Amino acid sequence: MRIPTVPTAARSLLGVAALAAVLAIEPALAQEAAEAAEEAAEASDVLVEPSTQVKFILNSLLMLLGGILVFWMAAGFAMLEAGLVRTKNVSMQLLKNIALYSTACFMYYLIGYSIMYPGDAWMISGILGAFGTAGLEAVAVTADAADDITYATTSSDFFFQVMFCATAASIVSGTVAERLKLWPFLVFVVVLTALIYPIQASWKWGGGFLDEMGFLDFAGSTVVHSVGGWAALAGAILIGARKGKYNSDGSVNPLPGSSMPLAFLGTFILWMGWYGFNGASQLAMGTIGDIADVGRVMANTNAGAVGGALAALILTQFLYKKVDLTFVLNGALAGLVSITAEPLTPSLGAATLIGAVGGVIVVLTVPLLDKFRIDDVVGAIPVHLFAGIWGTIAVVFTNGDASIGTQLIAIVVVGVFVFVTSFVLWAILKAVMGLRPTEEDEVLGLDKAEVGVEAYPEFGAGTIR
Amino acid sequence: MRIPTVPTAARSLLGVAALAAVLAIEPALAQEAAEAAEEAAEASDVLVEPSTQVKFILNSLLMLLGGILVFWMAAGFAMLEAGLVRTKNVSMQLLKNIALYSTACFMYYLIGYSIMYPGDAWMISGILGAFGTAGLEAVAVTADAADDITYATTSSDFFFQVMFCATAASIVSGTVAERLKLWPFLVFVVVLTALIYPIQASWKWGGGFLDEMGFLDFAGSTVVHSVGGWAALAGAILIGARKGKYNSDGSVNPLPGSSMPLAFLGTFILWMGWYGFNGASQLAMGTIGDIADVGRVMANTNAGAVGGALAALILTQFLYKKVDLTFVLNGALAGLVSITAEPLTPSLGAATLIGAVGGVIVVLTVPLLDKFRIDDVVGAIPVHLFAGIWGTIAVVFTNGDASIGTQLIAIVVVGVFVFVTSFVLWAILKAVMGLRPTEEDEVLGLDKAEVGVEAYPEFGAGTIR
Amino acid sequence: MRIPTVPTAARSLLGVAALAAVLAIEPALAQEAAEAAEEAAEASDVLVEPSTQVKFILNSLLMLLGGILVFWMAAGFAMLEAGLVRTKNVSMQLLKNIALYSTACFMYYLIGYSIMYPGDAWMISGILGAFGTAGLEAVAVTADAADDITYATTSSDFFFQVMFCATAASIVSGTVAERLKLWPFLVFVVVLTALIYPIQASWKWGGGFLDEMGFLDFAGSTVVHSVGGWAALAGAILIGARKGKYNSDGSVNPLPGSSMPLAFLGTFILWMGWYGFNGASQLAMGTIGDIADVGRVMANTNAGAVGGALAALILTQFLYKKVDLTFVLNGALAGLVSITAEPLTPSLGAATLIGAVGGVIVVLTVPLLDKFRIDDVVGAIPVHLFAGIWGTIAVVFTNGDASIGTQLIAIVVVGVFVFVTSFVLWAILKAVMGLRPTEEDEVLGLDKAEVGVEAYPEFGAGTIR
Repeated sequence: MRIPTVPTAARSLLGVAALAAVLAIEPALAQEAAEAAEEAAEASDVLVEPSTQVKFILNSLLMLLGGILVFWMAAGFAMLEAGLVRTKNVSMQLLKNIALYSTACFMYYLIGYSIMYPGDAWMISGILGAFGTAGLEAVAVTADAADDITYATTSSDFFFQVMFCATAASIVSGTVAERLKLWPFLVFVVVLTALIYPIQASWKWGGGFLDEMGFLDFAGSTVVHSVGGWAALAGAILIGARKGKYNSDGSVNPLPGSSMPLAFLGTFILWMGWYGFNGASQLAMGTIGDIADVGRVMANTNAGAVGGALAALILTQFLYKKVDLTFVLNGALAGLVSITAEPLTPSLGAATLIGAVGGVIVVLTVPLLDKFRIDDVVGAIPVHLFAGIWGTIAVVFTNGDASIGTQLIAIVVVGVFVFVTSFVLWAILKAVMGLRPTEEDEVLGLDKAEVGVEAYPEFGAGTIR
Repeated sequence: MRIPTVPTAARSLLGVAALAAVLAIEPALAQEAAEAAEEAAEASDVLVEPSTQVKFILNSLLMLLGGILVFWMAAGFAMLEAGLVRTKNVSMQLLKNIALYSTACFMYYLIGYSIMYPGDAWMISGILGAFGTAGLEAVAVTADAADDITYATTSSDFFFQVMFCATAASIVSGTVAERLKLWPFLVFVVVLTALIYPIQASWKWGGGFLDEMGFLDFAGSTVVHSVGGWAALAGAILIGARKGKYNSDGSVNPLPGSSMPLAFLGTFILWMGWYGFNGASQLAMGTIGDIADVGRVMANTNAGAVGGALAALILTQFLYKKVDLTFVLNGALAGLVSITAEPLTPSLGAATLIGAVGGVIVVLTVPLLDKFRIDDVVGAIPVHLFAGIWGTIAVVFTNGDASIGTQLIAIVVVGVFVFVTSFVLWAILKAVMGLRPTEEDEVLGLDKAEVGVEAYPEFGAGTIR
Repeated sequence: MRIPTVPTAARSLLGVAALAAVLAIEPALAQEAAEAAEEAAEASDVLVEPSTQVKFILNSLLMLLGGILVFWMAAGFAMLEAGLVRTKNVSMQLLKNIALYSTACFMYYLIGYSIMYPGDAWMISGILGAFGTAGLEAVAVTADAADDITYATTSSDFFFQVMFCATAASIVSGTVAERLKLWPFLVFVVVLTALIYPIQASWKWGGGFLDEMGFLDFAGSTVVHSVGGWAALAGAILIGARKGKYNSDGSVNPLPGSSMPLAFLGTFILWMGWYGFNGASQLAMGTIGDIADVGRVMANTNAGAVGGALAALILTQFLYKKVDLTFVLNGALAGLVSITAEPLTPSLGAATLIGAVGGVIVVLTVPLLDKFRIDDVVGAIPVHLFAGIWGTIAVVFTNGDASIGTQLIAIVVVGVFVFVTSFVLWAILKAVMGLRPTEEDEVLGLDKAEVGVEAYPEFGAGTIR
């Protein structure tokens, strides 16, 4: 370290000062003063906040850890969806997931990030400049050269935010599984992650009009989860149901998922990732208050999931006399989505209740969608959209700063924007590329038809249906 | 930050002092003094400990990271058990795991945590107050308002501890798999996590009599793992073996598990989670000594698992001329349980040996249980109970503060308490609700009978047996 | 803490100094000086670096977190390989993975670590002293007793480094899967991890001649990945192809993998682990510059994977009119390997391009290996060796300190050393123990022949082929 820091400089002056003191005053008095100062120093040590640089480092670390955990959610969505589709479409579902994640990261870097934070120091230098070295800090940047030493590194912020954009896209793939071709889906993801998600996200997290109105959405029940849900709903309506899902007499064929262990694993990966999704959304852990809040958020996030799982467990036993595992898994996820809009202010009990309502919503609305013949393969619409709306409203119960009116306005504004743009986009893709594979291909399964790789070539996949 | 901190205040005085000095002393002398002070400052910088607040933040972060890793172990138990049961019971095993985890978190929050830390500042305000806002810190709590600035946030402590309680419950589900109904199991979990686990845990970690006696159990070979093991043993005895496991002639049918990849994945998830289970049990990383200890603990934890896996690998090859994968997986887990009571003081070599003995214990005691017709589906009793006892005893080999007498007393006291209460509880449940499904349901498989969701509907599940 | 630290001592002097000042100077002047100092202090706070101890703690934490993530990669390799082999060899592949990981950790501790850092304070006291208490810091070590307070704890360094050694070994098992016996493989791993890997690693990371030549390899495209690749290539050549892979007419039978979800899961586990593999290789996060670099590294690591996946996605669609999932997964991994030699200096765009080239390399070289009848079951040679070479060369495009000559020399030197030693070792093992199982055993599958545990006993494993 070249520049001598102030304390060092200060200490050198100390030497002089001490000398002066010793010369100027008789020992006894000095002794007294020294003791007094000693006590004062010790007593007040607990009031010494971490330095600006320590805070900056800890905040950045929080977002990097959060980013890793939210990345992990991409694997969670893939496992959940692979477990809930039939074997003949598993490889395609996995392919869509790695492809959508990669597309989302690339488009968000290329365009989305700059749109989400307009005129911000965080510009990854726009489209043309994308391949320049601009954007992230210079290598070995020093404190005085850092953009904003009071927040965190641009790289950690980007790493964290890009994962949220990918999450929104992940939500869509599950709903429209088993009857949507790969490429139109990926084109949809390009637009969703380059424009639709970042534009509406900027309204809140970019300091836009929803933020100025006082809309509160801690980690994105609306900004992330409902966005994925609305886009999925538009797609499900336009694409239509899977062949054989609904009978002419209005009855429903279950078309059970191929692997419950994968569905379970996916759920727990998402649950684990959510500690980063919500916890790191505190965006700081450099003070007592911030780290305590991060802890509150994580504990409440867990409580929300627990509430959702228990509510679905009890309700399905009561309604169906059997406990449907998929409802319990989706109940936990709905609990997580419900607590995401405000995981900080609730007590553990309130968080459990907020999550429990989310679990109830899933159990009650899954059949409802079937009534409208909206075929949601994994239940993403109840989990991410319906529970997301609930969670956004529930903020008002525990956060005094929230206004029910503002929360509702934001839900509607974001909903209309995302649903309409998504619907139009799906419609254009339907007209231009076509969304569905041929009937033969759908019956054969997309793995053989489009991917050319069977998920379980030795397990007689698809023999049952 | 409103209150001007001491250093700032101090620095202002510095200005004055410096001035005084410069006025009072001739340059040369000042120069000398300054240089001396400069050197002193630099030389002693390495002795400047992090401030109380930085320590508090780092300690809290350690426990939050540890909590996430121990949460992940819940998924590990589920994958391990799903892989070791037959396909017809996989969905039920998954359901039991998410249900037991959720129940454990809820009961521990509602009752257990307050029981475990009696009269402590950490009370989640008891049963009646559970839904109040009490317990976790206030939102944006400040340093002077924090309960105990020398330890960590209550939220991080709760988040970490609740995961341990869930772990104890997870151990039980594997042993009694494939022939126990869902609801009596969940009622057992309610009592285990609300009362049995917290009460005995308070004896050590709540500062109770075992702690005062000098009982040493760093991360819970006895307090967590043997507790799960004793509860599982009581259940296995009372519930009896799976239909078809033991023949009248005394021979044993293997009933192989349905998926080795899931069993492997579960083992490695548990292994990963154990770095948090043991590492974060240091409860602090705000000093050189603490972070070095956390590192020692993690390195030794890995060494223990390695020793257990290698011992089982070599011993099974020697005994059976083939290497049984399930023994190697359980050997690694037994190594982890063995090192959990004292992962800090052993050298890497000693840790490897302690783990290796755990691996040997598993290979030798699994057949032993079969001799007594105790049907432990996943081998949780050898892994968590027998290796847990070994690990608790092994503390005396590397930790001078440990007394073999005290360790044995604690093993017996905890064992008697947990086994007896669990046995009585299982007996009551047997009388009141009945523990086993009907013979038909057991043959059919619990997935079809109770869950209504098959784990692998397209793979001809259960066709073999 | 017994020794009073300087600031405390300083503060006591402050008391005296202040007093002296107040006595010596008239209020007005004192007031002025105080204000000036106050301003100076505030203005310069952002320039106050974290203390040496805080840096030391944060650096150690980074490596412990990195170690956990790299450990997780061991599970990733296992899942990837279990998914890409046929069901009849899945248990053996899992067994090899837990056995190789455990062997690697044990041998690296016993011998490798000391070889890799010759004459270093980090000696785990050599072979004879291995079971002594030497090596890691003493329990509760204090700042003045720590070896080197400017870096990190020995325990965190060992924990991080041992995982890299295991990674190199993990790469080998996939290539030679399905036709190599367990024990000769483990003997190979013993020598690879005790001698071959540590010796060449010391040339760069132990401060050896490659390091002195200015060879740059941030996290080990050459030092780790190409090493595994060379060892695998030597094995594949000497062991020969799987029975039925290549027809006499030169055509190739695909022998598809048994589970795409496991292959996908393994890829994403590796991807997640890579944030620690590359990110923690910064080895420090105690300054603004270091944490910003860690963030850059993580963001670029993700960009590299994204580039590799997208390149493989588009190229396979273009070449084969279908998108082969396994190519996209390996494309992402190749992107990760490509960016590993220099994840810090590239811009996000450059990182994406570097990764994309890696993805292209995989798609083009997998068929090439088949032309030479080199049977690489999982594609580890293209991913880890070919992309590793590319990544090592690519350093020169973004890092001005890199010399193409030096990079090429290092690639050749390491390649020749590892390939020759591995080839000789495989040859000796072939002569002494024999590498391949009998033809009958290979047809039957290694699970039944050597492990005695079927991976999926109820799924009619191996019924197709």
